Amino acid sequence: MKKLEVPLSGGRGYEILIGRGLLDEAGSRMKAVYHGKNIAVIADSNVAPLYAARVEESLRSAGFAVKTVIFPAGEKNKNLATLEMLYDGLLAPAPFALTRSDLIVTLGGGVTGDMGGFAAGTLLRGIPFVQIPTTLLAQVDASVGGKVAVDLRQGKNLAGLFYQPRLVLMDPDTLDTLPERVFLDGMGEVVKHGVIRLPALFSMLEECPSREALRPLMEELLYQNCDCKRQVVIEDEKEAGGRMVLNFGHTLGHAYEKLGGYQTYMHGEAVCCGMAAILHIGERQGITPRGTAARLERLLAAFGLPYKAEAVSKEALLETLSYDKKGSGSDITVVFSTGIGSTLLKKMPKAQFADWVREFCRQEGEA
Amino acid sequence: MKKLEVPLSGGRGYEILIGRGLLDEAGSRMKAVYHGKNIAVIADSNVAPLYAARVEESLRSAGFAVKTVIFPAGEKNKNLATLEMLYDGLLAPAPFALTRSDLIVTLGGGVTGDMGGFAAGTLLRGIPFVQIPTTLLAQVDASVGGKVAVDLRQGKNLAGLFYQPRLVLMDPDTLDTLPERVFLDGMGEVVKHGVIRLPALFSMLEECPSREALRPLMEELLYQNCDCKRQVVIEDEKEAGGRMVLNFGHTLGHAYEKLGGYQTYMHGEAVCCGMAAILHIGERQGITPRGTAARLERLLAAFGLPYKAEAVSKEALLETLSYDKKGSGSDITVVFSTGIGSTLLKKMPKAQFADWVREFCRQEGEA
Repeated sequence: MKKLEVPLSGGRGYEILIGRGLLDEAGSRMKAVYHGKNIAVIADSNVAPLYAARVEESLRSAGFAVKTVIFPAGEKNKNLATLEMLYDGLLAPAPFALTRSDLIVTLGGGVTGDMGGFAAGTLLRGIPFVQIPTTLLAQVDASVGGKVAVDLRQGKNLAGLFYQPRLVLMDPDTLDTLPERVFLDGMGEVVKHGVIRLPALFSMLEECPSREALRPLMEELLYQNCDCKRQVVIEDEKEAGGRMVLNFGHTLGHAYEKLGGYQTYMHGEAVCCGMAAILHIGERQGITPRGTAARLERLLAAFGLPYKAEAVSKEALLETLSYDKKGSGSDITVVFSTGIGSTLLKKMPKAQFADWVREFCRQEGEA
Repeated sequence: MKKLEVPLSGGRGYEILIGRGLLDEAGSRMKAVYHGKNIAVIADSNVAPLYAARVEESLRSAGFAVKTVIFPAGEKNKNLATLEMLYDGLLAPAPFALTRSDLIVTLGGGVTGDMGGFAAGTLLRGIPFVQIPTTLLAQVDASVGGKVAVDLRQGKNLAGLFYQPRLVLMDPDTLDTLPERVFLDGMGEVVKHGVIRLPALFSMLEECPSREALRPLMEELLYQNCDCKRQVVIEDEKEAGGRMVLNFGHTLGHAYEKLGGYQTYMHGEAVCCGMAAILHIGERQGITPRGTAARLERLLAAFGLPYKAEAVSKEALLETLSYDKKGSGSDITVVFSTGIGSTLLKKMPKAQFADWVREFCRQEGEA
């Protein structure tokens, strides 16, 4: 088992535990951070049948009273209506209505962690919660940083807050049940961490470019990725600035994801296309060394990940950029790469960025 | 004009400004705390026609771009559906879609401050906001403490968070347009502050027991009440314990309010009945000096405020107490009075408290 400390300002902080079989130790691990009696588990309709019984059993063995609140799986359900269903389930009187001194456990992928965390952060103005992310994406991305949210019709994660868990448990075994596409979805963020901060990880991926080859390295891979995100977040808890490097590939990635109706491209796939695009744009503008985009595209192709968002209309892309919530007035801060392992944050007029994207679209159209 | 500093942990903090005519100075006052360009004002359908134009004009004169988002007035609209309307209005592209570096102003009563504050605290994970409370209740109660929330069908303020404003502006002139009942609603909380911490204020109210008599004292009254709440909140920002004194009269008050469908009793009216009840219970249990309840009831009667929740069924009352979110497992912390100006926090089994309430109901039924 590997362990990471995530210290936070104000004396708060929590541990991330990474280890095969941890799911069955949920009860004893929970006891270390929670001294109450009642625990509500939140899981979606995909994950609940796979893992809820094991987690419930472990929690009950440790002496906790448990109820599980299940919601319909899918990014399209990450909205205020489903949030209300969660509140209803958490407050339902049988077997117990949750109070502020109880605990919430989110068991599942990014949607569960984000929306369950939002419910935890707001119900009764905040109930302590523990995250058990079960997808690669949630493990390497969503479990560090304290971001919780639901989507609004105008875009993804538009309503949310910063709310930190008491503990994060990751069991790499849960990755074995992931459909190929969902596994690869997480690889997008893994590759991103390589590009922005971990050149050695990037090289390792180039040497083991398959799910099977990575399997024995998974605890280490999760550890390195969480540690990378952790370091960035420690430096900048409230997303004042430095944390923006994590946004690499996301400015266009979010747009691709949204324009595909959150169906055509999964988050990680959209980020892959966004990374390739921003490397091409950076190369064209003299920010990124020539050849960087090609190197990334070779790696993505080896994994079977997309790097061109061909299903997205270029007109719609340019229009949607104005909604990006990282924007500040008429300026936007874009993360460029200055080579594998290093980045450059560039604050620029939205109109200029749109021009660069337009140029890239034209160039791509001609290629 | 009077000024109060509300210091908060972590270097944050804000000022409360209290003065006649401050509404027309909104623009210049805003400039001191906000250096951006766009401001979205949130107001309900009652307050917008009265004051939105004046505030907008003041903001525009100071160089800000302004839009006003209006929602249907009433506690019954303080829910997730209306919150979604607010998000829609704030994100609407014309004349500008709000970004994280813009500002929200909540202009109105408690519902506007609570729900508008919740929108501000969650949209894009937090947009700075300024409160302009226009009712007595919002001025003395809701503008200190950083509590923002919406109601759920299970109860009042069940979904929320702590989110502090950048500035609070109060113009006592706005109280002149309040219907009698809405004014008196706020007097309930004023009387509460007298009972828990301000015996001199309580005596002053006994000497000036009418709206007209209080009018020239209003700046001072607002100042004393905000200062009282401020002191309690400074001592206990996150409601770990001490802040519970503000809950005096609320354990039963919330229940009365809910059981009356948020129609029969306004918040302050329900709190008045809750205070009288808890004084009677305290007297019977030997916690509160004999005669305290009678003294409170004389004052409430002089103002035309209720002190007996006669419309509420005693059975329903006893049943609903189990939902109170201040509860912790099977225990509940109840605020008792040990005489005008002093309190006692008593953690006790919910069942025992229910017994005491049952006894009080029986005694009241016989009286």
